[in-house]
Amino acid sequence: MIKPKVIKVKKDILHKNNELAATNRALLAKTGVVALNLVSSPGSGKTSLLEFTLTNLGRELKMAVIEGDQQTDNDARRIAATGVAVVQLNTQSACHLDAAMTKRAIDETDLDALDLLFIENVGNLVCPAGYDLGERMKIALLSVTEGEDKPAKYPKMFRNAEVMVITKIDLLPYLDFDMSTCLDYAGRVNPDLKVFLLSTKTGEGCSAWLDFLRALVKEA
Amino acid sequence: MIKPKVIKVKKDILHKNNELAATNRALLAKTGVVALNLVSSPGSGKTSLLEFTLTNLGRELKMAVIEGDQQTDNDARRIAATGVAVVQLNTQSACHLDAAMTKRAIDETDLDALDLLFIENVGNLVCPAGYDLGERMKIALLSVTEGEDKPAKYPKMFRNAEVMVITKIDLLPYLDFDMSTCLDYAGRVNPDLKVFLLSTKTGEGCSAWLDFLRALVKEA
Repeated sequence: MIKPKVIKVKKDILHKNNELAATNRALLAKTGVVALNLVSSPGSGKTSLLEFTLTNLGRELKMAVIEGDQQTDNDARRIAATGVAVVQLNTQSACHLDAAMTKRAIDETDLDALDLLFIENVGNLVCPAGYDLGERMKIALLSVTEGEDKPAKYPKMFRNAEVMVITKIDLLPYLDFDMSTCLDYAGRVNPDLKVFLLSTKTGEGCSAWLDFLRALVKEA
Repeated sequence: MIKPKVIKVKKDILHKNNELAATNRALLAKTGVVALNLVSSPGSGKTSLLEFTLTNLGRELKMAVIEGDQQTDNDARRIAATGVAVVQLNTQSACHLDAAMTKRAIDETDLDALDLLFIENVGNLVCPAGYDLGERMKIALLSVTEGEDKPAKYPKMFRNAEVMVITKIDLLPYLDFDMSTCLDYAGRVNPDLKVFLLSTKTGEGCSAWLDFLRALVKEA
């Protein structure tokens, strides 16, 4: 008795969300800004990856960040410390950003002055998967501490992403994480998924990630 | 324009959910079963904590597990390997268990033969916080790899839980995790939160956890 109601309203919401996402996408395309929607579990390292990226590409590319959190501006303060412009969105009870929230943040951003716009979604491997914000692509992070089975257990997220960044690989010696099983699960869910393995703590694997971003901006 | 619709329906759903949760709670009380709702991010170690617990209390207590996952029966197979009865619930697109799903699983369980019923929720620090399943209490896990700020960023979960289990403490030497900051955040969100620090890999801190479960069953 409960389920049909949820589904009906969800479809209605998703339709409106998709319309707004299309508006965002058109605006970003017009101004030549590459927007990337970063999604993952809580604590997978989205903010750390952004800190590393902003610090290392700050002299080459013009970047800004939209920070999505249920509560606190902890992450926004970490981003601001790198000298990059950041807009905070607190979702309160909502478990994901949507296109309307993103539009409000984009409206506060000088798109003409930008190459890359990072959108850090709420930490959640479920809900953000279904919401288009108008981004160029979703980038799903998975830290090696979470276990190799997550692409199989949360397939929608890894199917809707174009890139998977496997983070915290410096911890591999202390874990029973089976990388080939993880890549196998991910490949079954999404054969086109592009994968990076890196640690922002040691810098291992990070240059390929930075090159990927440079290429995205060049193509735009 | 979108928000009021969501909120209205959500209230309606939560009202029906609470009614069903009360039914579950009455049934569990009548049969003297202690039901614990385990919630956390994906990969925080809920299944590992259950494996450890079932193995170490299997001769003393009669236990069963309800496994909630979006997809796969990976965790249910891990639980079944300990010899304990397990019912799998696949939520598909849903980001949390609800009382109706839990009732269906309870109906397949022989409550008269049980002391403890563990309910492993979908890995998600947001959505399961708002759904009462009829459990005795919510137990929120937080692995040290996720960072110390999670109780502040996801306050509803840690406010609605009675217990926080900080897992994977064997990894502390390799992380920049500040335990006192974490406990401070948690205490501000929920001053009554009972905290366990443990590693199921090394066994450190686990005896206090097992004693806590023994006491819960004794009180029931």
